Amino acid sequence: MTDLLSRFSINQMTVKQLSLPELTAACAESGIRNVGLWREPVQSYGVEAAAKLVRDAGLTVTTLCRGGFLTAIDPGERARALEDNRRAVDEAATLGTDTLVLVSGGLPAGSRDLRGARERIADALAELGPYAEEHGVRLAIEPLHPMYASDRCVVSTLAQALDIAEHFPARQVGVTVDTYHIWWDDTAPAQIARAGADGRIHTFQLADWTTPLPEGVLNGRGQIGDGAVDMREWKGYVEAAGYTGPIEVELFNDALWARDGREVLAETAARFVEHAGG
Amino acid sequence: MTDLLSRFSINQMTVKQLSLPELTAACAESGIRNVGLWREPVQSYGVEAAAKLVRDAGLTVTTLCRGGFLTAIDPGERARALEDNRRAVDEAATLGTDTLVLVSGGLPAGSRDLRGARERIADALAELGPYAEEHGVRLAIEPLHPMYASDRCVVSTLAQALDIAEHFPARQVGVTVDTYHIWWDDTAPAQIARAGADGRIHTFQLADWTTPLPEGVLNGRGQIGDGAVDMREWKGYVEAAGYTGPIEVELFNDALWARDGREVLAETAARFVEHAGG
Repeated sequence: MTDLLSRFSINQMTVKQLSLPELTAACAESGIRNVGLWREPVQSYGVEAAAKLVRDAGLTVTTLCRGGFLTAIDPGERARALEDNRRAVDEAATLGTDTLVLVSGGLPAGSRDLRGARERIADALAELGPYAEEHGVRLAIEPLHPMYASDRCVVSTLAQALDIAEHFPARQVGVTVDTYHIWWDDTAPAQIARAGADGRIHTFQLADWTTPLPEGVLNGRGQIGDGAVDMREWKGYVEAAGYTGPIEVELFNDALWARDGREVLAETAARFVEHAGG
Repeated sequence: MTDLLSRFSINQMTVKQLSLPELTAACAESGIRNVGLWREPVQSYGVEAAAKLVRDAGLTVTTLCRGGFLTAIDPGERARALEDNRRAVDEAATLGTDTLVLVSGGLPAGSRDLRGARERIADALAELGPYAEEHGVRLAIEPLHPMYASDRCVVSTLAQALDIAEHFPARQVGVTVDTYHIWWDDTAPAQIARAGADGRIHTFQLADWTTPLPEGVLNGRGQIGDGAVDMREWKGYVEAAGYTGPIEVELFNDALWARDGREVLAETAARFVEHAGG
């Protein structure tokens, strides 16, 4: 149990009601050793200051969320996106994490061309991959659930993510395996094996699937154990594929955000041990 | 254009504010020759009476929606579901349609076993397929968007649907190809070809993908042309696979339901010609 908890990482978004100092203090008190951070609250706090805060608390930063949004057609927009992603790589390096999670972006306004959007992501990664490698950061393409395909992420499956990632060395580009997005996909276990064989599982994240989905479908990710996802089964797939790294719990959930953050943190760690352990 | 309109079928749900007599009258006036019907309004009107009404109006019933919900574990529930599906087959036969659309059902309460649920669907179809064939009705498994996997339909992709359907003769079990559910899936075109090669495309339905999704994600299907789906592209795939049958437009949309049904019917036919034609 203690050993499993040593692999637990709390994604900052799960308890976004906690400030960064509150989060690091709560982790220290609860024996939680890993955090996944988000750019916006880190930028608000100051990237250098945040890096010092988590370092002084003895925390490992497992990922930075998120880069991406690489599907623009407009050259100016595209250039700005690439520049923003280079800044995200810099921030990841400053925070001492080796993994930047990428949410690839949706269809540009008025476009219906999924294939073209996916190709533009690959083109962008040809520029960003080497830059990330120079800074000791790996890019982790996250397939998002197909319900986000038009407005958020045209990469909907692990197979699609790997088709893109495999244009590049694994030390530059891999994937994020997140149960919330792939739990319904019977081809995902084989794709996890494919990713693992090539050293491309750069992070593994958990969230449960609960219904009804809220309007906009963003903030309804279920607490571990509350929904349809068999966490042990998916943990088994990534472990069979050779993944032994940290396991992040990343929940976007209005009900959890309305509660005391320290209580949610303790509950999340306990649910993790209960449902992913053994 | 006239020729394309002859393939257009208005699914009753798109204009559910119209009574069955209003719908048949509006179709007759607009030159619309095909309708897809739903069990509940047909039952309310009376199945025999509905059959006479559409027959007298010269309409072809392209499908009956819907059977299915075949994932129960409890023997009593399972027996009731099978019996209800036999009644649905009877109703389809009475209405003179050869196609009963199946929404397979979600996970039973407390279950996380997608694989088991999918197996129970195949088991149920082994009983229902021969019954349907005896009545001149084909069962059309509809893969629903993965956002419905837990609570409505554990069959999320055409590949999964065909994996089940291929246990049976195509004259008993095929699939429903609906753009709303599969538009994000880059493997779907190959699966459409697989279905077509085997004569398993039993119906082709259109709806557009628009965001933001409403709470519960049921009633946000976009009017043709309003969203991210390239209708001509998907029509091209089913036609390349040999499908030359009717094309249903099936929208669940609160905003459309709040409008005058005859106006929505005319708009839908016009959008169909504009976006699926040529």
